[in-house]
Amino acid sequence: MKIYVFGVRGDEEAPLKKWASENPDVSIDYTTDILTSETADNAKGFDGVCSVQREPYSREALKKLHDFGISKLSVRNVGTDGFDYKDLNDFSFTLTNVPVYSPNAIAEHASFLVGRLLRRVPEFDKKFENGNFKWAPTIGTEISGKTVGVIGTGHIGSVFARIMQFGYGAKVIAYDIDPNPALENLGIYVDSLDELLEQADIISLHTPLEPQDYHMIDADAISKMKQGSYIINCARGGLVDSQALIDGLDSGKIAGAGLDVLDNENGIFQKDFGSIDAVPNEKFKNLAKRDNVIITPHTAFYTKKAVHNMVYEAMDTQKALLSGEITKNIVDTKEFAKTV
Amino acid sequence: MKIYVFGVRGDEEAPLKKWASENPDVSIDYTTDILTSETADNAKGFDGVCSVQREPYSREALKKLHDFGISKLSVRNVGTDGFDYKDLNDFSFTLTNVPVYSPNAIAEHASFLVGRLLRRVPEFDKKFENGNFKWAPTIGTEISGKTVGVIGTGHIGSVFARIMQFGYGAKVIAYDIDPNPALENLGIYVDSLDELLEQADIISLHTPLEPQDYHMIDADAISKMKQGSYIINCARGGLVDSQALIDGLDSGKIAGAGLDVLDNENGIFQKDFGSIDAVPNEKFKNLAKRDNVIITPHTAFYTKKAVHNMVYEAMDTQKALLSGEITKNIVDTKEFAKTV
Repeated sequence: MKIYVFGVRGDEEAPLKKWASENPDVSIDYTTDILTSETADNAKGFDGVCSVQREPYSREALKKLHDFGISKLSVRNVGTDGFDYKDLNDFSFTLTNVPVYSPNAIAEHASFLVGRLLRRVPEFDKKFENGNFKWAPTIGTEISGKTVGVIGTGHIGSVFARIMQFGYGAKVIAYDIDPNPALENLGIYVDSLDELLEQADIISLHTPLEPQDYHMIDADAISKMKQGSYIINCARGGLVDSQALIDGLDSGKIAGAGLDVLDNENGIFQKDFGSIDAVPNEKFKNLAKRDNVIITPHTAFYTKKAVHNMVYEAMDTQKALLSGEITKNIVDTKEFAKTV
Repeated sequence: MKIYVFGVRGDEEAPLKKWASENPDVSIDYTTDILTSETADNAKGFDGVCSVQREPYSREALKKLHDFGISKLSVRNVGTDGFDYKDLNDFSFTLTNVPVYSPNAIAEHASFLVGRLLRRVPEFDKKFENGNFKWAPTIGTEISGKTVGVIGTGHIGSVFARIMQFGYGAKVIAYDIDPNPALENLGIYVDSLDELLEQADIISLHTPLEPQDYHMIDADAISKMKQGSYIINCARGGLVDSQALIDGLDSGKIAGAGLDVLDNENGIFQKDFGSIDAVPNEKFKNLAKRDNVIITPHTAFYTKKAVHNMVYEAMDTQKALLSGEITKNIVDTKEFAKTV
C-alpha cells in the first residue's frame, strides 16, 4: 500500500515519520508542495493521497489523480470548502477529513484570549516596551464571578465551558440548538440565543458555520448584549459581522474582542505582508490597531498535539480506506461544504 | 470618627467613596500624596490613618502622626517592609495590613502567563506587528496533559491548582511544608520540593518569602528540573535567583519564564524609564528582551476586585481598630517584615 502526502509543513514531518515507522506495511513519500496539476505527478504509482492546503484544489489536479487510478483522498484538517464537490463526484473520489483533532488546543486558546483582554495585556505590553512599568490606570478584571456565555457546546465549546466554570469559577451559561447531553446536568443551558446575549459578560463562539448562522453576531445581536461585553471567536469568521463589531467597539457597547477568525480572513491569514499597513483590508486594519482587540491569525488549533492528531487521524483514515475498511470521517460530498 | 487616607490612586477613589457612603458614621478625607513628613500634617485632627505606598515610611512622618495623637495605621496592601518596626514601636503604633484581597487576581494572572508562554505569544505578537500571519514554525503546546507543579498552596496556590487541574485538565502536583487540608483529598501533594522539581513540566511559585526560601529556585534547583520546564513566579521576587534563571534559559534547560516579580525589582517596577534600554539593571534587560520570558511589572494583583477589597478591608479594619474592636489583620511588629 502506497500513500503520497502533499503539503507537509515542517511541524508535520516528525509525526508523519513516526506514523510511517509505526506502519511498516504502508510505504509513503511526501512533499512540502501543495497539490496542484503539476505536483499531482508525484502521486503516480501511489494508491492514495493525503493532503492539506488553504488554496482551492484544482479540477486539473484531481483529474490527474483520477487518471493515475487514485480515488481516495484524506485531508488533514476539518474544512473541505477548498473542493468543488462536482469535481470530486465527477472523478468518483472518496474524501475524508479530520473532524476532531484537539478540542483543548482551541478551547485553551479562547480562554487565554479572555485573559489577555480582561487583563489589558496589549496596553501593558506597549507600556512595557516603552520602559513604563506603572500599573495605573491599566486596571484589569477577573474571570471569577463573570457570566460567560458559550454558544455551541460540542467538543470545543464543552472544554471551554469546563475551563471557565470549574477552573476560573465563572458562571457559565450556554446555548445550543442541540444541547450536549454530557453538559445538561450542569444546568447551564438557556432557552434562546437572546437570553445568552442579554446575560453574558463574555461571549465565546464555538459553533460550525451553518448557512443560517452567517453573521449570527450582527448589529441586532450586539444591540442585545450587556454594555461592555467581550466577544471571543475561535470558531468561524463568518459568524461575526466585522463591521457590526467595529461599530460596537466604537460605541463602547463591546469592551473588547478576541478573534482567531474573521469573516474576511481569506487572502490575509497565512500570508506575510511585511506590515499591518500593507494588508489590503480596511476592516482588518481597523480591528488590528485597537488595544482592546486581539487578533490571532487562525492559530488557535496550532499545537503539537493537534498537528500530531491531524497527521495520525488522516493517515489512519487513508490507510483504512485503502484497506477497504469503513471509516468514520467520510465527507458527504453531495452536500455543500459547511466548514472552513 | 475621622480617618485620613494617604496615597489614593485613581482606581481607588471609586471604592473609597463607596465605602464612605456606606459608613456615614465615619468622616474621611484623602489625598493622592503618599505619607511623608510634609503630608502628615493633613492628618491633624483625625483619629486614624489608612495608607499605601511603595516608598519607605519615614520616622519623621510617623512621629508627626504620633504627635497628633494618632496610633492606628492601616495599610491597604500585604507588605509592611516599608516600615522600620522600631519606629512603629517607639511611637506605639498598631499596624494592620490586608493579608488576602483577591487570590483569583493573582492565580488567574499566573495561569495566563502559562498560556502566553506555551502558545508563544511574544513571538506571534512580533510576527503580527510585522504583518506576518503565517503559523509555522511558531507551534504551541497545550496545558492539558502537562504536569504542573505548585509550590505553596495557600489562598493563591490553591486557586491556581484548581484552575490547572479542574479547568485545563493538567496533572497537578504540589509541595507545601504545611499542606492545605482543603486540598489533601486531591492527592496532589508530593513529599519533597525535589520530587516536584523533577516531575513538573510547569512550576508555579505561590509561597511567601521566608528567609530560608530566598533563592529557593537557584542553579541547584534548576539542575533538578526536567529539560524544557517553565517557571512562573507571581509570588515574591526573592524566591528565584535571576542569574540562575538566565543561565537556565541560555542552556535551554528552562524553556520559558513568566515573572510578575523579580529579585531585583526594587527601583524598576512602578517607574517609567522611557525605554527598556534605560533601565539600570542588566539582568532585568537580559530577561526582558527574551521572547520566551514574559515580565509583568508586579501587576498580577491589579484587578478592580482586588483594589476594591484592599480599600474596603483596610478601611473596615481601621474603623474596627478605632472602635476598639479586635481585628484579625494586626501585624506583629515585634517580628521582621516577611513580605513585600
